[in-house]
Amino acid sequence: MQVDTLIHARWIIPVEPENTVHENYSLAINEDKIEAIIPGDDARSKFKANNEINLDQHALIPGLINTHTHAAMSLFRGLSNDLPLMEWLNEHIWPAEQKWVNPDFVSDGTELAVAEMIRGGTTCFNDMYFFPGHTAEVCANAGMRAVVGLIFIDFPTAWANDADEYLVKGEEVHDAYRHNPLVNTAFAPHAPYTVSDEPLKRINVLAEELDIPIHMHIHETAFEVEQSIEQHGKRPLQRLKDLGILSSRMLAVHMTQLELNEIEELAKLGVSVVHCPESNLKLASGFCPAAQLGNLGVNVCIGTDGTASNNDLDMIGEMRTAAILAKAVANDCTVLDAHTTLRMATLNGAKALGLDESIGSLKKGNQADIVAIDLEQLETIPLYEPVEQIIYSGNRQQVSDVWIAGKQVLKDRELTTLEYSRLMDKAKEWQEKIKER
Amino acid sequence: MQVDTLIHARWIIPVEPENTVHENYSLAINEDKIEAIIPGDDARSKFKANNEINLDQHALIPGLINTHTHAAMSLFRGLSNDLPLMEWLNEHIWPAEQKWVNPDFVSDGTELAVAEMIRGGTTCFNDMYFFPGHTAEVCANAGMRAVVGLIFIDFPTAWANDADEYLVKGEEVHDAYRHNPLVNTAFAPHAPYTVSDEPLKRINVLAEELDIPIHMHIHETAFEVEQSIEQHGKRPLQRLKDLGILSSRMLAVHMTQLELNEIEELAKLGVSVVHCPESNLKLASGFCPAAQLGNLGVNVCIGTDGTASNNDLDMIGEMRTAAILAKAVANDCTVLDAHTTLRMATLNGAKALGLDESIGSLKKGNQADIVAIDLEQLETIPLYEPVEQIIYSGNRQQVSDVWIAGKQVLKDRELTTLEYSRLMDKAKEWQEKIKER
Repeated sequence: MQVDTLIHARWIIPVEPENTVHENYSLAINEDKIEAIIPGDDARSKFKANNEINLDQHALIPGLINTHTHAAMSLFRGLSNDLPLMEWLNEHIWPAEQKWVNPDFVSDGTELAVAEMIRGGTTCFNDMYFFPGHTAEVCANAGMRAVVGLIFIDFPTAWANDADEYLVKGEEVHDAYRHNPLVNTAFAPHAPYTVSDEPLKRINVLAEELDIPIHMHIHETAFEVEQSIEQHGKRPLQRLKDLGILSSRMLAVHMTQLELNEIEELAKLGVSVVHCPESNLKLASGFCPAAQLGNLGVNVCIGTDGTASNNDLDMIGEMRTAAILAKAVANDCTVLDAHTTLRMATLNGAKALGLDESIGSLKKGNQADIVAIDLEQLETIPLYEPVEQIIYSGNRQQVSDVWIAGKQVLKDRELTTLEYSRLMDKAKEWQEKIKER
Repeated sequence: MQVDTLIHARWIIPVEPENTVHENYSLAINEDKIEAIIPGDDARSKFKANNEINLDQHALIPGLINTHTHAAMSLFRGLSNDLPLMEWLNEHIWPAEQKWVNPDFVSDGTELAVAEMIRGGTTCFNDMYFFPGHTAEVCANAGMRAVVGLIFIDFPTAWANDADEYLVKGEEVHDAYRHNPLVNTAFAPHAPYTVSDEPLKRINVLAEELDIPIHMHIHETAFEVEQSIEQHGKRPLQRLKDLGILSSRMLAVHMTQLELNEIEELAKLGVSVVHCPESNLKLASGFCPAAQLGNLGVNVCIGTDGTASNNDLDMIGEMRTAAILAKAVANDCTVLDAHTTLRMATLNGAKALGLDESIGSLKKGNQADIVAIDLEQLETIPLYEPVEQIIYSGNRQQVSDVWIAGKQVLKDRELTTLEYSRLMDKAKEWQEKIKER
């Protein structure tokens, strides 16, 4: 049989079925889909490929899914650090956003972020930012898969002035991309403390009608919870539940403040939790009980948050932080083992986004979103278990090749759809402008 | 004036004086020492160099000092993960050590570790392992600076059978290297629970006589503390204090279990604490109160621990984990700011090892232990503050060049004193043997 691409890999880690590592297997890609994953010898006799690739020191994994980003904020990478959260927001990030955020900023920042993500093995991201139509456009052009957030916030911004405008503009973006194979949308009401009850109810209805997820920061800090009790007489999760907005549609991001009954409720309602360990640590937000959530049946996925608070979009590093931090938080070094952690960053993310029928694992019929990691480097030798090596010793610079929907977007570490030198020049231009502030 | 090497750098971060970043400065090296750090234009007129290097997108920092390693264990990298601590030790690590540890294992494992450390910007490490003479020999040959631990443990091992033999063999290693410019020694009694009172008293006397540090795991886990209370009627720190062994000579590693009065005592006695955040997380040992220790006047430095429990020797990654974790532990995002964290991984380490008169900062007269980091890469752009960028976005693969005692041991990412392909072959040979177990 003729196929477009045939990859012979030292290891293939499909994520589904669980805890599986195929050695010396091959993966066939036809058009945008995975055609087969079978032993190398069988593949060589069965398939004839336009493009045959030997990756004999590499592991193939499903493309990583970063379930919480503010991609355009890449242009604010490292703008200010080591500051108290409210000072950081009030005196640095928000003024910078007020001054700089416009369609060009979003396009250029997103392009930089997409390049960083592809180079680090991320093939899909769930974003929340202003001018989501520009985010979508960049992704469509770069061959990057994304769920762009139709952002909503109670106060006026450069993107919209009031509730109606946020919703109308959001729906326009949704409509423009509803048949795009790479770009999906989600509603993205910013947080319980920045979105009031009425728009939340409207968003909930619209999300059901359009059948898209809802992406929201929830219980990020203790302060948020205290403030809600003062203002609403209840914790944010309870308020959201009373509004009817907690369901399997919801991606609840951060969740550092949780009581046992809340975790049980999340499991029952099918809410997904997006764990952003490095952002939570760096901003001293608290510790998300990632292992406990998983053990009690909550679908937990992993996000980096924006570069302004991380300061990178490195999902391999984030998996490692998630895996080791969870052990200390749970006081149990068996939790978030390597396979579980990889699953959180792939299939669980796909499930949260409603995309697990097509991405998140390597199997016949799925979209060909694939990442190759070169494990034969001095920092990952000797090698006893490839999945454990990726999680505990892997470095994103070992990502050699990336395919999204069958198209190779990283080839031996070279971007194929974006121009490195132009991205660097653009980023430096913004750097000089923003520095002037 | 004629000098050996003149480096023109975009940034020079000397660590001492504090919070300083020189832009467009140059650093002159003569023989093994730093001759000058002055503005680039002055340097060009003042010095004539045999070797002139332009690093116009790089930051120079003092070589990183990894204050806790078991270097040879690199050959056990990722051998087993995600297991309960005692099962991991009893059923995996200790049997593997019993079977494999011999002089060849230590030489080959240390060589691999040294290569990894140099490629990651580490120029000095404080080690604890068997056959320290072989560790020393590898370092002397590779041009790596090290403090090799004269290990002591109550039970017999491949290295020594009883207290006398441990001490005699340790002193032999000390004597053999006492005039070596790169290799220093420290006593390394393993831990309070593996070394009894009598040998600790002898080690304390010998350490004073030889004027060398003492390197010991202390308060790594809650279990260790409980066990000591049962067996000795007191916490390990109190027992060590009563034995008279707590002083500015002591590097106390891990320290996840600390009460306020103990921290105050450590500060008073001048004990240094070696913080190993990733090992502590991965083994679910607990949280070292790094920020509180520093605020109360304790000299805190950073170590990776061995690759079997980390699983790397990446000090740039370890600095980042230390910096972000400390904020969440202290519930204060201003602690362990980027400059403080870099200082912990350089000058504080030198101080703990009694070497701060010659290494740990970039200044005239110091040993030329220097690391260049290329910051003009897509993952570290835009760039607002170089030190913050290194700590929060830096990747060890951005380390381009490394000098130790004036000798360039990494040149545009190529090792100059060790052969990459031979190291890979050796590591694979060990991998195949150890896998058979």
